[in-house]
Amino acid sequence: MKLEARLLDIQAGGKSIVVLDDKAASLLGLHSSDRAKISFRNKSSIAIVNIAENFPSTQIGLFEEISSKLGVKNVEIIEVIPAESPEGLSYVQAKIRGERLREKEIMTVVKDVVERHLSDIEIASFVTALNIHGISMDEAESLTKAMVETGSILKFDSKQILDKHSIGGVPGDKTTILVAPIIAAAGFIIPKTSSRAVTSPAGTADRVETLCPVDLTVDEIREVVDKTNGCMVWGGALDLAPADDIFIQIEYPLAIDPLLLPSIMSKKKAIGASHLVIDIPAGRGAKIKTIGQANSLAYDFIDLGKRLGIKVQCAVTFGEQPIGLTIGPALEAREALMTIMGSGPADLKEKATNIAGVLLETVGIENGKQKVRDLLRTGKAEKKLREIIEAQGGNPKIRPEDIKVGDKKVEILSEKDGRVLWVNNRSIAQIAKEAGAPREKGAGIALKMKLGEYVESGGVLFEIYAERNTKLEAAIKLAGILQPIGLSKKPEDMMLMDRIPPRTIDREIFMLER
Amino acid sequence: MKLEARLLDIQAGGKSIVVLDDKAASLLGLHSSDRAKISFRNKSSIAIVNIAENFPSTQIGLFEEISSKLGVKNVEIIEVIPAESPEGLSYVQAKIRGERLREKEIMTVVKDVVERHLSDIEIASFVTALNIHGISMDEAESLTKAMVETGSILKFDSKQILDKHSIGGVPGDKTTILVAPIIAAAGFIIPKTSSRAVTSPAGTADRVETLCPVDLTVDEIREVVDKTNGCMVWGGALDLAPADDIFIQIEYPLAIDPLLLPSIMSKKKAIGASHLVIDIPAGRGAKIKTIGQANSLAYDFIDLGKRLGIKVQCAVTFGEQPIGLTIGPALEAREALMTIMGSGPADLKEKATNIAGVLLETVGIENGKQKVRDLLRTGKAEKKLREIIEAQGGNPKIRPEDIKVGDKKVEILSEKDGRVLWVNNRSIAQIAKEAGAPREKGAGIALKMKLGEYVESGGVLFEIYAERNTKLEAAIKLAGILQPIGLSKKPEDMMLMDRIPPRTIDREIFMLER
Repeated sequence: MKLEARLLDIQAGGKSIVVLDDKAASLLGLHSSDRAKISFRNKSSIAIVNIAENFPSTQIGLFEEISSKLGVKNVEIIEVIPAESPEGLSYVQAKIRGERLREKEIMTVVKDVVERHLSDIEIASFVTALNIHGISMDEAESLTKAMVETGSILKFDSKQILDKHSIGGVPGDKTTILVAPIIAAAGFIIPKTSSRAVTSPAGTADRVETLCPVDLTVDEIREVVDKTNGCMVWGGALDLAPADDIFIQIEYPLAIDPLLLPSIMSKKKAIGASHLVIDIPAGRGAKIKTIGQANSLAYDFIDLGKRLGIKVQCAVTFGEQPIGLTIGPALEAREALMTIMGSGPADLKEKATNIAGVLLETVGIENGKQKVRDLLRTGKAEKKLREIIEAQGGNPKIRPEDIKVGDKKVEILSEKDGRVLWVNNRSIAQIAKEAGAPREKGAGIALKMKLGEYVESGGVLFEIYAERNTKLEAAIKLAGILQPIGLSKKPEDMMLMDRIPPRTIDREIFMLER
Repeated sequence: MKLEARLLDIQAGGKSIVVLDDKAASLLGLHSSDRAKISFRNKSSIAIVNIAENFPSTQIGLFEEISSKLGVKNVEIIEVIPAESPEGLSYVQAKIRGERLREKEIMTVVKDVVERHLSDIEIASFVTALNIHGISMDEAESLTKAMVETGSILKFDSKQILDKHSIGGVPGDKTTILVAPIIAAAGFIIPKTSSRAVTSPAGTADRVETLCPVDLTVDEIREVVDKTNGCMVWGGALDLAPADDIFIQIEYPLAIDPLLLPSIMSKKKAIGASHLVIDIPAGRGAKIKTIGQANSLAYDFIDLGKRLGIKVQCAVTFGEQPIGLTIGPALEAREALMTIMGSGPADLKEKATNIAGVLLETVGIENGKQKVRDLLRTGKAEKKLREIIEAQGGNPKIRPEDIKVGDKKVEILSEKDGRVLWVNNRSIAQIAKEAGAPREKGAGIALKMKLGEYVESGGVLFEIYAERNTKLEAAIKLAGILQPIGLSKKPEDMMLMDRIPPRTIDREIFMLER
């Protein structure tokens, strides 16, 4: 059937969608969610059909993804015929029925996801079914491989590629900014790709961006790594395991994460990692609540790593309060820089030292932790960080005070004496976001008290930084509602550990960042 | 945040969607799938956010549903703020976790579905979770009530409202066109609403439409029923249990039907049914394959009916071949008319007599079947059908030959002698659709042989009718591929019951029509 193209001049978020009127669809025997093959001159594409009423039945509405793929202009005539459902849909249906999928079937599904042959509805059903039925280790392996193979792969000359990853969920975790230079300074290759914040106040890419550019091309990355052994770049535009990005977008409103293992491992496999440490923060207020859960997840990562040829070690870390004292891109970068220069909070230094130490031990270095301490003490790690900053296009001489933080600031004071019994990660993250993080890089929180410390009435609990007064005020208000830090003179006075706060706009319980 | 409206001049299929640029979304702290409250003058609406790249960050893209609701025009300024996720989403998440939902929670979900506060992704996840975990009878009751309460309700004066329903899946089932007039002729109220075909070659509304208009308003329906005791109208525009229509649209590509019971019962409750017979066709090639499955489903319908105050009887019927000889709207209407006039195929007459008989017995008529035979024999049922046709605006004197069938016709001949061992329902339906049904009302199939009948080589197996030569040719070609009728001289020569045909465009295994 021939229809007149009507360009909608807007994207469909990457999806491959065409809009047909009821009558045209019915003439073609097509229903909403069916597939059509649309052709223009020598190009063609498969698209998912949406039905609109009151749309001219001689026209077909094209979102930008399709019109630019076909190179079609307004009112040009395109040929539309019904197309079969993608093969992957039958495996989605098999997964709903609880069947285990084989490697080839999973490859088909993932390919159909990346090529946009499966709709949001079908992908949502797939991830829901995976979440309910669980995935076997065979399936996790197949999913990882399929996600890697349907994307780009970064290749480096070295046989040993080191990497670290945190499953996330704890605010203020700037460990990577220390670990990457330490490993590079030890003489190993660590091409670190990171994400920006999706639901948290700062991702590693957001933090590093206050030190130097992070949006590098593949060639630029290779150059930086050749020069310095390491890098700290944003992975989002490198087309590494793109299926994962689509899955995450669908999982986000559902707050489910059935693909945690393949998702993380596919990104690592795509940069060729051979040795990997995974940080699993555990505790109330972290993603993983108990040591038992953490261990079980750790063994899964190690098993999956074996199948993929990646030597994995896991570090279960204390996740009941933020890492270090600061939350927010610029504040965190400043703190990381100070710490690698020798000052900075002990917990951050300790965490980085441990993770880098374990990573060095996976490649056969004895006393990895001592080696790391030496690299920090002698300034070699700092020097390496500055080399990386320079190679990525930043100022290698940057001082902590050069990193611009928000000039609107307020101190939140304690209303009573007491010892800090808990710090609510989620509330801290929400307040930092309310202040403007991660978009406004100078916004965030600087804690003045952490677990176990004693504060007197009128003492400073934390500071809020913002770039704009309206944001600062909103954050102060939210801090008053959420009261993120719990105090007591004696633990037994403080058996109430958490309160359910009044519902606020943010639904930040769930972090899907990688 | 104030943004300039950009009307997209196209519908989003009923959904409540706005399009934001990455930067504008990030300033608002919104991600794809988050909710925004958008306000214009004194009107406001909740919309689901889609993100587009390369879109001006000062604009907000509005699909027609939203722009017409707010009455906003191009470049007018509207206010956009983040909004909370709908409460129903947390119950969707609970259902993913396998929790049983309470009445109030289900009401919230269904309301959020109807008001378009839940996205396709979230609804897809919900129906998938329902399909995997199953629904309890309490949940089925709550879902039914919620679907009724969130739509319109048809009210009639009588306390006894009779109805029949087939769960479908067998082509050529024109039983309703006999049952409705029979029941009305017996003096009972039967306000029959039916669907059009979605994936089958004919729905009851499509068939009746060749006799008289079916697209009546609520007031017109009441008038017809007052006059004749019955009606046979299209239910699609009456806003009866609209949530069901949304669920069905999402379930369609997934080929799952977890809401079968609440879906059917909500439509019946919405027209006030007090006595209901449900036809469950069973057998190979039907939705329900075994008598055991049919019985179990029947008891569920009866239980659910009790909870809703509807007296339900179920009739398990033979579903291994089409009902009567014809498939396609006009051919079927013609056959139904002939049958109520006294000729016509025995299986159709027998099925209608049984179902109407059982329905009469639910309201206390003894020997319902005999009463039905009398109504048919004396011409009272035919007279009632003609009254209904007239009341709905059709010609009461219509003769079978007045119903126009396709003037392109071909006979499909047998290539060998033998007895009909099987008739493949799905293939018959596909061929009829390929010929143009249901859109081209004269298109379809007339069987010349049914199960157990003997045909000689060169004898006619079936005829294909079409309105256009291209469609006729396509149907002939498909018939050659699918070979929908299996013959053998002796059953033992024919142990191969079905073949997996080459994949064709239609994926018609699954019928979601009500």
